[in-house]
Amino acid sequence: MKNFNEIIKNKCLEKNNRLCIGLDLDNSKLISNSLDYMQKFIFDIIESTIDHCPIYKINFAFYEKHGSKGYAILEKIPEFINSRAITIADAKRGDIGNSSKYYADAILKNLGYDSITVSPYMGVDSIEPFMNYENKGVFILCLTSNKGSQDFQKLKIENIELYKKVALLVNKCNVKNNLGIVVGATNSDYLNQINEISPSIPWLMPGIGFQGGDLEESIKSEGNEGLSIINVSRGIIYHGSGSIEDIRKSSLEYTEKIRGLL
Amino acid sequence: MKNFNEIIKNKCLEKNNRLCIGLDLDNSKLISNSLDYMQKFIFDIIESTIDHCPIYKINFAFYEKHGSKGYAILEKIPEFINSRAITIADAKRGDIGNSSKYYADAILKNLGYDSITVSPYMGVDSIEPFMNYENKGVFILCLTSNKGSQDFQKLKIENIELYKKVALLVNKCNVKNNLGIVVGATNSDYLNQINEISPSIPWLMPGIGFQGGDLEESIKSEGNEGLSIINVSRGIIYHGSGSIEDIRKSSLEYTEKIRGLL
Repeated sequence: MKNFNEIIKNKCLEKNNRLCIGLDLDNSKLISNSLDYMQKFIFDIIESTIDHCPIYKINFAFYEKHGSKGYAILEKIPEFINSRAITIADAKRGDIGNSSKYYADAILKNLGYDSITVSPYMGVDSIEPFMNYENKGVFILCLTSNKGSQDFQKLKIENIELYKKVALLVNKCNVKNNLGIVVGATNSDYLNQINEISPSIPWLMPGIGFQGGDLEESIKSEGNEGLSIINVSRGIIYHGSGSIEDIRKSSLEYTEKIRGLL
Repeated sequence: MKNFNEIIKNKCLEKNNRLCIGLDLDNSKLISNSLDYMQKFIFDIIESTIDHCPIYKINFAFYEKHGSKGYAILEKIPEFINSRAITIADAKRGDIGNSSKYYADAILKNLGYDSITVSPYMGVDSIEPFMNYENKGVFILCLTSNKGSQDFQKLKIENIELYKKVALLVNKCNVKNNLGIVVGATNSDYLNQINEISPSIPWLMPGIGFQGGDLEESIKSEGNEGLSIINVSRGIIYHGSGSIEDIRKSSLEYTEKIRGLL
């Protein structure tokens, strides 16, 4: 059995792409706001882009806001994708050991997602239950794309910024080669610095498109053994009229740009 | 309309108690592992303790591991409690603005929980959407009860430990008087130090009982305008034979001990 970081790299090589479509779908922006329609639309987005898109990120907030019926859609997405692409559960979980184990069981085993985003605040033992799933991946929040990254992440802790401290600890813990980090593409000044520390693990990079992150810098920051995963959400799923045709068009445009930079 | 920190304090005064029962119920430990039975057992625990227990904490991991059917139980608990006690959704969420808003809508509005636990790693703007619900509460992770609290929380950032930096920022943001902090009761050496910084907001204190936290120190650390919320999970819900009678007995024993210290 391959480890996650090899699996995701192989999927990106297979499709010659680094694009990750963020399925952050707000049902109030659709022509019908029924959850059945939302699910159908999600499936249509996937079906129309999966020939070239290697990764989909599912932001759990957009589904949990619909309660157990929204959660039921979360249950169906990995089954629908059926290993044709990698799924990232963007759930930002993290708790003490026993609870983290249940979150890992819930999302990586029962729901069947390939990987998950996790917050590092509670320390290594809160992340361990996720990384114990060897063929599954864990993306640990490092330097995020929002303004609040200044409040703690960019402050110096023992002469090194907290986000670097996190990146160093992730490297150290990556014995099963299934850990990655979340690095906001809006932090282009910082990409070189993170590259010096973590050149050989996958970086999940949100912030391209709507949030203004730079695609070229993000792709070029990819380490020799690493992987820059370019997440685009609103920039694709609300492109143009928001029709499936426009979504596919935008996804192909991003794909072409990425391929041109690889 | 009262703000959350007044509401929770009034509920504690009304029942002359600081106990919070953690409904971290593992259905595999029940005589039937069906989810219907789990829900009935949760309701029985609440019904048999709500005469004296002012607060219940619901750890979402124990419900999410059952998928959308577990999520459906989460939907029913606040309705069942029906304002007879305060509910804390122990969900440890936190994301960029828009996503945090949907988590806040999901848990505080749609599910109807009175308060939620949130991770501070992504900074103030990730917490704002939760605190904008004025009559709802937000407990921000500060110093947690697990070993991993050493990895980042206890390290010095600009000459002050990260957990103190978090506590200071929480104070500063508490303009609506609806913020609290999570302080592990296993950190008794640190309680005085946190008290110097944050004496006037509620502290949610897990770690009593199974994890070995000290009840007396936790109660005595309560600030003049603050509130020490004593969370006990396994120490109550698995007490003795794990029957409803034994659960009530243990809950009353903790209540008596707490009342003796107030």
